[in-house]
Amino acid sequence: MGSALIVGSIALDSVETPFGKVEEVLGGAASYASWAASVFATVRLIGVVGEDFPQAHLEALATRGIDITHVRRVEGQRSFRWRGRYEGDMSQAQTLDTQLNVFADFRPEIPDEYRDTDIVFLANIDPALQRWVMEQVTGTQLSLADTMNFWIEGKRTELLEVLRQVDVALLNDAEVRQLTEEPGLVTAARKALSLGPRYVIIKRGVHGATLMSADSCFSVPSYPLAEVRDPTGAGDSFAGGIAGFLAATEDLGEPNVRRALAVGTVMASFACEDFSLQRLWRVTRDDVRKRYDELRESTRFDPL
Amino acid sequence: MGSALIVGSIALDSVETPFGKVEEVLGGAASYASWAASVFATVRLIGVVGEDFPQAHLEALATRGIDITHVRRVEGQRSFRWRGRYEGDMSQAQTLDTQLNVFADFRPEIPDEYRDTDIVFLANIDPALQRWVMEQVTGTQLSLADTMNFWIEGKRTELLEVLRQVDVALLNDAEVRQLTEEPGLVTAARKALSLGPRYVIIKRGVHGATLMSADSCFSVPSYPLAEVRDPTGAGDSFAGGIAGFLAATEDLGEPNVRRALAVGTVMASFACEDFSLQRLWRVTRDDVRKRYDELRESTRFDPL
Repeated sequence: MGSALIVGSIALDSVETPFGKVEEVLGGAASYASWAASVFATVRLIGVVGEDFPQAHLEALATRGIDITHVRRVEGQRSFRWRGRYEGDMSQAQTLDTQLNVFADFRPEIPDEYRDTDIVFLANIDPALQRWVMEQVTGTQLSLADTMNFWIEGKRTELLEVLRQVDVALLNDAEVRQLTEEPGLVTAARKALSLGPRYVIIKRGVHGATLMSADSCFSVPSYPLAEVRDPTGAGDSFAGGIAGFLAATEDLGEPNVRRALAVGTVMASFACEDFSLQRLWRVTRDDVRKRYDELRESTRFDPL
Repeated sequence: MGSALIVGSIALDSVETPFGKVEEVLGGAASYASWAASVFATVRLIGVVGEDFPQAHLEALATRGIDITHVRRVEGQRSFRWRGRYEGDMSQAQTLDTQLNVFADFRPEIPDEYRDTDIVFLANIDPALQRWVMEQVTGTQLSLADTMNFWIEGKRTELLEVLRQVDVALLNDAEVRQLTEEPGLVTAARKALSLGPRYVIIKRGVHGATLMSADSCFSVPSYPLAEVRDPTGAGDSFAGGIAGFLAATEDLGEPNVRRALAVGTVMASFACEDFSLQRLWRVTRDDVRKRYDELRESTRFDPL
């Protein structure tokens, strides 16, 4: 079993959706991604929490074998908090409040024993920090980076530098358009590829995801979930699933990356089924296999 | 080769997109749908035009073998005109002007020799008229109906009656949510199925399409087109492609309807590549086959 290094936020989320409301539950991109990755791979987590962060949350991650040795707890500081609401079709989160707290000074230091981790997933953080991690993980086989509109607008130079270095860029459809200033999705994805990455993965939310490389294009729909209770963390679970599956299979060829996207899609579906990581906690490899097969069946059509 | 009956609008469109501008070109749902259907099937077209409608447009349709005998030309009346604009990602048309003209009094009379047409596609018209057509086509094997937000809001009772009668309902994602008052797409599609149709097809524009039946769910992405010049008529070409393919293959089983969705998706891609039916005019079955194979390749992934 290969290893995956996940770097990003660990948060306390307060979320309201048409299906309910939770206060200060475990959240953050790195929490979702590391759990999703842990279904297939050995996971190493790098993040930071404040002194008020419930130890039980970290222990829950550790029970799966996620290495939390280097999750730093900073005394005298409060944890990163996010408050959001979803309405209607829940395709878009409304952020009601963000308190960076200890996350504002996050500077991910990668210990020597992590530097040759097979796969590195840089969750959505300041691209300057993503670069800093890239400089440290000299022995990695594949790096994936997520980002967001805030960095595309405010830290474009640093982000372009990250894109030159990483193997896989993860963007949603609005972000790839914003990054490339190109309204057409296919052309936008091609332009994004020309910025450096070997693969560009476009996240389309409920509409699925697309994998672009220089000579191929692959699309997978989202898993047809009857009830989405809380979409928070779906994109991070998707990315974590991809990272974990690639770490475990140690095959970076395009056909296997397609399979990884389908695994990520299944992980995202579990994330959406309940608040926080409540559904993900119970996910087994068999659960993943079952939905993977269903997803595959839901995309097959015969030749003409 | 089976036969398809297409009932709907024949229009003069004026369209502006970031790629250009055209004035009073051939448009209308039935024009796109009948041409797309004619790639595979014998097509019978029912529509109405004014005395100002260029005969060359109708003759162009006839060159493909589309039966235009019962397209009515009303003297002393002007043709249906639509003016629209697309901006940005072109996912949404802005309607600048609609002149119903002769189309306002459209009352589709189906001649006796059309009543047993294999497949009937009711393009987006008043559901009361769709019902009227359904009463006349007593010998049809499969009926498909499109609709729009305007009718869902304004003629719900009549539309529900249509849905009880037709085999296939075509809706976009916003419409299926509006119809069922259900924000979740899967649940919305299931609710739409419970209203009567054997299949519900959800059009997702650039994100593809989904076919739902009581016991299956199938999604196909859009064909990855490098340049979308004008998306007008994409949904109608999609529907026409489905109708024509089902008429030609005479197989209404779910696996063949999946193939029909892929054919429709390819037809929609041709419609988007140029203004009016300019790209569609030149489409051969081999062109369709080639894109169909590419589409299939772009959705395949191996078992876990």
